[in-house]
Amino acid sequence: MSDPKLYDTITAIAKRRGYYWPSYEIYGGLSGYVTYGDLGTKLKRNIENNWRSHFTNRQEVLEIEAPIINPATIFEASGHIANFKEYSSECTKCGHSFRADHLIEDKTDLENVEAMGGDAIKRLLVEHKIKCPRCGSPLKEPTLILTMFKTDIGATGGLTGYARPEAAQGMFINFKRGYQHAREKLPFALAQVGKVMRNEISPRRGLTRTREFTIMELELFFDPQQPECPWLKEVEDEKVRLLTESMQASDDRTPVETTIRDAVENGLILTEWNAYYMGVSKRFITHLGIPEDRQRFRAHLPDERAHYSAQTYDHEVQLRSFGWLEVAGHAYRTDYDLKAHQKGADTDMTVLREDGTRFTPHVVEPSFGLGRQFITALEASYEHKEKRNIFHLPRDLAPYQLSVFPLVTKDGLPEKAVEIHRALLGAGFAAFYDERGSVGRRYARSDEAGTPLAVTIDYDTLQDEAVTIRDRDTWGQVRTSIKDLTALLKEYYSYRAEFEDLGPAV
Amino acid sequence: MSDPKLYDTITAIAKRRGYYWPSYEIYGGLSGYVTYGDLGTKLKRNIENNWRSHFTNRQEVLEIEAPIINPATIFEASGHIANFKEYSSECTKCGHSFRADHLIEDKTDLENVEAMGGDAIKRLLVEHKIKCPRCGSPLKEPTLILTMFKTDIGATGGLTGYARPEAAQGMFINFKRGYQHAREKLPFALAQVGKVMRNEISPRRGLTRTREFTIMELELFFDPQQPECPWLKEVEDEKVRLLTESMQASDDRTPVETTIRDAVENGLILTEWNAYYMGVSKRFITHLGIPEDRQRFRAHLPDERAHYSAQTYDHEVQLRSFGWLEVAGHAYRTDYDLKAHQKGADTDMTVLREDGTRFTPHVVEPSFGLGRQFITALEASYEHKEKRNIFHLPRDLAPYQLSVFPLVTKDGLPEKAVEIHRALLGAGFAAFYDERGSVGRRYARSDEAGTPLAVTIDYDTLQDEAVTIRDRDTWGQVRTSIKDLTALLKEYYSYRAEFEDLGPAV
Repeated sequence: MSDPKLYDTITAIAKRRGYYWPSYEIYGGLSGYVTYGDLGTKLKRNIENNWRSHFTNRQEVLEIEAPIINPATIFEASGHIANFKEYSSECTKCGHSFRADHLIEDKTDLENVEAMGGDAIKRLLVEHKIKCPRCGSPLKEPTLILTMFKTDIGATGGLTGYARPEAAQGMFINFKRGYQHAREKLPFALAQVGKVMRNEISPRRGLTRTREFTIMELELFFDPQQPECPWLKEVEDEKVRLLTESMQASDDRTPVETTIRDAVENGLILTEWNAYYMGVSKRFITHLGIPEDRQRFRAHLPDERAHYSAQTYDHEVQLRSFGWLEVAGHAYRTDYDLKAHQKGADTDMTVLREDGTRFTPHVVEPSFGLGRQFITALEASYEHKEKRNIFHLPRDLAPYQLSVFPLVTKDGLPEKAVEIHRALLGAGFAAFYDERGSVGRRYARSDEAGTPLAVTIDYDTLQDEAVTIRDRDTWGQVRTSIKDLTALLKEYYSYRAEFEDLGPAV
Repeated sequence: MSDPKLYDTITAIAKRRGYYWPSYEIYGGLSGYVTYGDLGTKLKRNIENNWRSHFTNRQEVLEIEAPIINPATIFEASGHIANFKEYSSECTKCGHSFRADHLIEDKTDLENVEAMGGDAIKRLLVEHKIKCPRCGSPLKEPTLILTMFKTDIGATGGLTGYARPEAAQGMFINFKRGYQHAREKLPFALAQVGKVMRNEISPRRGLTRTREFTIMELELFFDPQQPECPWLKEVEDEKVRLLTESMQASDDRTPVETTIRDAVENGLILTEWNAYYMGVSKRFITHLGIPEDRQRFRAHLPDERAHYSAQTYDHEVQLRSFGWLEVAGHAYRTDYDLKAHQKGADTDMTVLREDGTRFTPHVVEPSFGLGRQFITALEASYEHKEKRNIFHLPRDLAPYQLSVFPLVTKDGLPEKAVEIHRALLGAGFAAFYDERGSVGRRYARSDEAGTPLAVTIDYDTLQDEAVTIRDRDTWGQVRTSIKDLTALLKEYYSYRAEFEDLGPAV
């Protein structure tokens, strides 16, 4: 079902055209690090902004930016120092270390081995006689390793710090400030888009598991005695496919198809808030180009769930390259985190109800590792047609909005094209000027950059002040006057699909 | 001349309203770290995008995103391991460490002590009998300390890594990829906007010196045999005030006023490229709210210049709070970095001229630490008037574009206001709904958030479908129909001052 070669194809285009490539190439490379190029940086930023328009574009959501390096006390209180670990198997001969669960997955048909726990991992390594994949020598018994980056804060040392492996703690420890800025009303949310670091034992599969990546994360705080989500009706009719805990326990891998509303009413999703964000998540991922029948939400099994979670659904997409890939996590974290920091910081983290009782808010968290949405958008939009590579990216995600070409590079056409290109840049469009090679080759390059429209200046332009606009997806062309061009393009690019479904004002 | 209390005032507003605050508050705080809140995150992102519109909005500039953690080899090759150091004085009794040059500056009238070198620092500490500022005990002789964060890459250790203290190396080591994506033509530039970390010995003054901050940096690569900057004419008439090396050597602190063009012709700026970016820099900082007579470019003295630089001008602004503050550096790095990595990676970093000769490109670098532009924009726009705090931020920087108020919270006005607020959010505006307290107090809160316009829904609105728009700066009001509102606001916010001065197409 999966086609790993497709990922290789996309990786090769990505490197050649500047979407992304392995970091530290001239120094021989270093696994787990990628560098985004011109096209990639633009696509990545557009995905971030699209995520914001889905998740943070309402007053109750406050975006913040907290530091990456945290003092160790934060992660002691949160439980990360005790729990953010993976099983590592070291080779007895070459000394290389590998993630034990991944070794088992590579050698068997088993999936999600991590969820089976340490005893099963140790047993399976022995049962399947798994050796070092580099040198074939025996492996030592696996041990749990903390996968966080450690450092000293202060140039003269003294205070141990860790790079955050997710952005969540920055929101929990700033809960009280956020509550103040949200005017002491629940529900409200804090959100972050920022870098996180995970010191992976053996990173692999390019963008899907890197040691440094951008996370887009939101913590919604609510009163557990008032668990209704007033925004639920906006997404209640969204159809989702759920793979619940019991379905996985019974080995039935056929997901149930349901609406968000029915999933709540039937108890498949524990809280309306998680349900709401799963509905928004489905819309966001659909906008990236994944149809709903290639999406599912898989519940974490009890052994698989993080230490803080009462229920977690992974949002998974079925890629042509890898098969099923997790693109988001939806965790019901209850009051675990606020209570943990209340204890760790010895500070009151409760808030007051109108009736005078105090309580610790509960938390629901949608979390997105951006490398995975990035590769999802790229792969979902990829088509190979008539020897051309085309990325059919949505118009609000495409790195460049416009290509601008002179038909030929003489007779004043380049000058006219440069003038138009410059005017479009000045009007705020991401426009790319190209005069190299034949127009056909320029169209091909433009399609490969995912650029939705190409504007061509020809001999007639000098007479009629009109240009040809060519569509990336249909290869159809229309002619329009230069004076109408900016307004036309502004309208084309102001189309924002996600707002069509917002429904009536609440 | 300077007014430190103003910074305290702004810091207090910033904390209360959610621009920024000290990180890890509930854990007792940790110097050198700040967290941006809702208003701050929006303002910061707007400054980033404004920087992009000044510095990267042309085809020859490719933005990339490279990792924060780098293997040690990168910084060995670049010279950072040997040179990214500061003099640290440790207290003999309490054990705290302090930046030796800052201790001297705090105790004397001397400025820029770092530039005087280690011998002078050691001598001045003794001459001025400087003691520990915490406990009054004697200090040890200062020693040079590496101020970079160190870590191990790989959960099982083995490879030493450092967090980058600037973004430049990520662009130098990716020069060849960038050159490929720029179609092997010079000049071209790589740019980055991203986090950097500096393990400061004794961070202070809030946002101006933090251990983690966003840098906006650009490396322009050019052929030293073709040093002309074809874009120079766009900024050649900009007036700048220069404090050259010789002026500082002669203790004459009066800057020379000159145009960018004259500064190049008179040899005050060594390269046209540095001059070009200094002109753009002046425009960018002016847009943040600093008039040209409170800006200057100060040349680094030979002892002060970084190990890679042939000439560096610091762009400084005169703040009401701190006095002169560096907001940008403009360094002529020559071929230092590419040659360093050619050696370090044992890889050819030269490119080919049309005549068949090979050469190492030269580099000019404008570099901006965003915390300083942030505090500059906030302070420059701050006014205290009639007991109100107002931030007169430019319309493209203000965190929120619009406030939306119902005149009273009854008779259907809130419902109408919510409907309009929702429509404005849907149209892509950053709009804030407020119905708490009197309209006067809401205007005051809106001014304190720097919001340029407030839209008020009153009883007439229910009859005439019109609203009142109130201006933050003039407090003047106009009435407009709801059906024209979106178009009117789009026009208001599409105004982009920086493009007015772009000049004719090149």
